[in-house]
Amino acid sequence: MTVRVGVLVSGRGTNLAALLAAEAAGELAPAEIVVVISNKPGVRALEIAADAGKPALVVDHRTAGGREAFEHALLAALAQHGVETVVLAGFMRVLTSTFVSAYPQRIVNTHPALLPAFPGTDGPAQAIAHGVKVAGVTVHFVDTGVDTGPIIAQRAVPVLPGDTAETLHHRIQVEEHRLLPAVVRALAQGRLVCEGRTVAIRGADADQLL
Amino acid sequence: MTVRVGVLVSGRGTNLAALLAAEAAGELAPAEIVVVISNKPGVRALEIAADAGKPALVVDHRTAGGREAFEHALLAALAQHGVETVVLAGFMRVLTSTFVSAYPQRIVNTHPALLPAFPGTDGPAQAIAHGVKVAGVTVHFVDTGVDTGPIIAQRAVPVLPGDTAETLHHRIQVEEHRLLPAVVRALAQGRLVCEGRTVAIRGADADQLL
Repeated sequence: MTVRVGVLVSGRGTNLAALLAAEAAGELAPAEIVVVISNKPGVRALEIAADAGKPALVVDHRTAGGREAFEHALLAALAQHGVETVVLAGFMRVLTSTFVSAYPQRIVNTHPALLPAFPGTDGPAQAIAHGVKVAGVTVHFVDTGVDTGPIIAQRAVPVLPGDTAETLHHRIQVEEHRLLPAVVRALAQGRLVCEGRTVAIRGADADQLL
Repeated sequence: MTVRVGVLVSGRGTNLAALLAAEAAGELAPAEIVVVISNKPGVRALEIAADAGKPALVVDHRTAGGREAFEHALLAALAQHGVETVVLAGFMRVLTSTFVSAYPQRIVNTHPALLPAFPGTDGPAQAIAHGVKVAGVTVHFVDTGVDTGPIIAQRAVPVLPGDTAETLHHRIQVEEHRLLPAVVRALAQGRLVCEGRTVAIRGADADQLL
């Protein structure tokens, strides 16, 4: 039994590429990426999806006729492809309960910071400005807040002397591109158990925590 | 040339014990602990200090006649012992500019969380309640906020399945008891350079970042 996954994107598609590479390597099963949807036309993520032979759609938030109409259009496109689980991979729109309630504990997001520190835009730049020495990545369930949902998995990386937001972001992405596919796989396997804010991972590998 | 260090405590003295052990092993030099001051009488930290042959004083915040009088009494006691650098080791009073301005970039605090996440009391319990998967410890310069000063060093630890605030705190303390003495030594060596919120560590070991 596969679990049909829709990936929402807004830009360069680096996390999408990591998911597609994991799928090609057989490391995403039972999850299967069945559609990629961007809220912006012309972005690199759409090319990456098409190159991988995936349906690549645009649901433009600027022409959708408001936030609720945008979310209904997104939901309709996902439903058309039989999507059961949604992955936000650099998707830059906050979702309301209209969308979130349609996929209870079936939407995950990745954020390049150790939440609850540095939510919102440009986590790595916030981390550099604050002068932290440890940064990282968080994959979490999506609720209607900004990066506030229950945390599934996190990985820490050091902030090194001379780091810029860019060099730090690159170091975070190395971890992120391993972590996100592992979480999607665990979710598809039904191994994530959410109790309040705590997410337990059944059958977790002691080393990997996933 | 030694650097004369005063340690402020409020309780069990686990971080004080780690500093004293490092000093006994020759790992704190050129820093030298010359006095330990508690804002509470009868705490275990005072016994630990006395057992190590250190002057152990009480400056009771409840009988000092207000916050400013308390801080002046603390400063007087530190001055009597020729203290140049102050370490807050589980010291549970917020300091005002009266105190902080007397030791510019010469007061460090340790906090059992990856700041800016979970400042204030009981960082490990906050981390468990929030459901994070990575926690840690922060050693930072003290300003007049609550755990808001420039970050000198941080170490991450995993949150493991079944962790309570107590088991997580214990794991954090293992790192804390290594990190705090290393920071005190680096500060005494004049190797910490604060530029805005960013603390550079001169001559940093690439592995240890200290």
